[in-house]
Amino acid sequence: MGAAPLANVLTLGAVDFPRLRDFYGALGWRQVIDGADFAAFELRGIVLAIFPVEKLAADGGAPVEERAGGVRSTIGVIVDSAEEVDALTDRLRAAGARVTKEPVDAELFEGRSAYVADPEGNFWEIAWAPGDNAVVAAARRAAGASP
Amino acid sequence: MGAAPLANVLTLGAVDFPRLRDFYGALGWRQVIDGADFAAFELRGIVLAIFPVEKLAADGGAPVEERAGGVRSTIGVIVDSAEEVDALTDRLRAAGARVTKEPVDAELFEGRSAYVADPEGNFWEIAWAPGDNAVVAAARRAAGASP
Repeated sequence: MGAAPLANVLTLGAVDFPRLRDFYGALGWRQVIDGADFAAFELRGIVLAIFPVEKLAADGGAPVEERAGGVRSTIGVIVDSAEEVDALTDRLRAAGARVTKEPVDAELFEGRSAYVADPEGNFWEIAWAPGDNAVVAAARRAAGASP
Repeated sequence: MGAAPLANVLTLGAVDFPRLRDFYGALGWRQVIDGADFAAFELRGIVLAIFPVEKLAADGGAPVEERAGGVRSTIGVIVDSAEEVDALTDRLRAAGARVTKEPVDAELFEGRSAYVADPEGNFWEIAWAPGDNAVVAAARRAAGASP
């Protein structure tokens, strides 16, 4: 295989579509689709799509997974400074997210991070690390920016 | 808020880390980190990270979510032709993915799509649609490419 695949449309199946759409809509992110049952926000790196989970499951040929609570995966946001970790965490909290880990200097790398869950339990990590961090450098390249 | 956030490090918590790492490693994607308990693949748009789910949960201040089966979210890959939908689906199947929807001309948009689940039940949609599709155009922009 040659070039890496373009793999960046992250679709969250929503139990309560209007609520989840409105949660993300309130964050001020660029909304590129605002349909009756499909919404999409263009970030850097990914397009975040919201779609009713029963329709996603029907389209995907799989049953809806019931939510058991807890974390299984995260969408990582890389911000440009330690202060922005705190600021974005506060902004998500104000929009209705649940902060499961308040911003702290990171234990696993040099930098700062926090974790929040959206109203349906989809987890985000908000992180800052110096540009020589290998994940940060790869994330910038993947989004088309120079490291 | 000004520019959209760089939100593109997708971390899958692995129940069986070596197995999930090896599954993705076999696909030929560019691996930028290959640690004892952390692996990362640089695609276009996202960085796909694999991390033991109990460590992800400990870092995130949340319990591990048990897997109930079924689908809740998908990572969407946009390929460049209808034929590539079939080819990538076959490639993932050969690597051990479970195809839940064989490639078909899409019902929800003009194009072609398939769904597969990795060995731990993380779902991917593989799709092709013409470049004037709003999601495709946004996905290309988000990855730094001209639509």
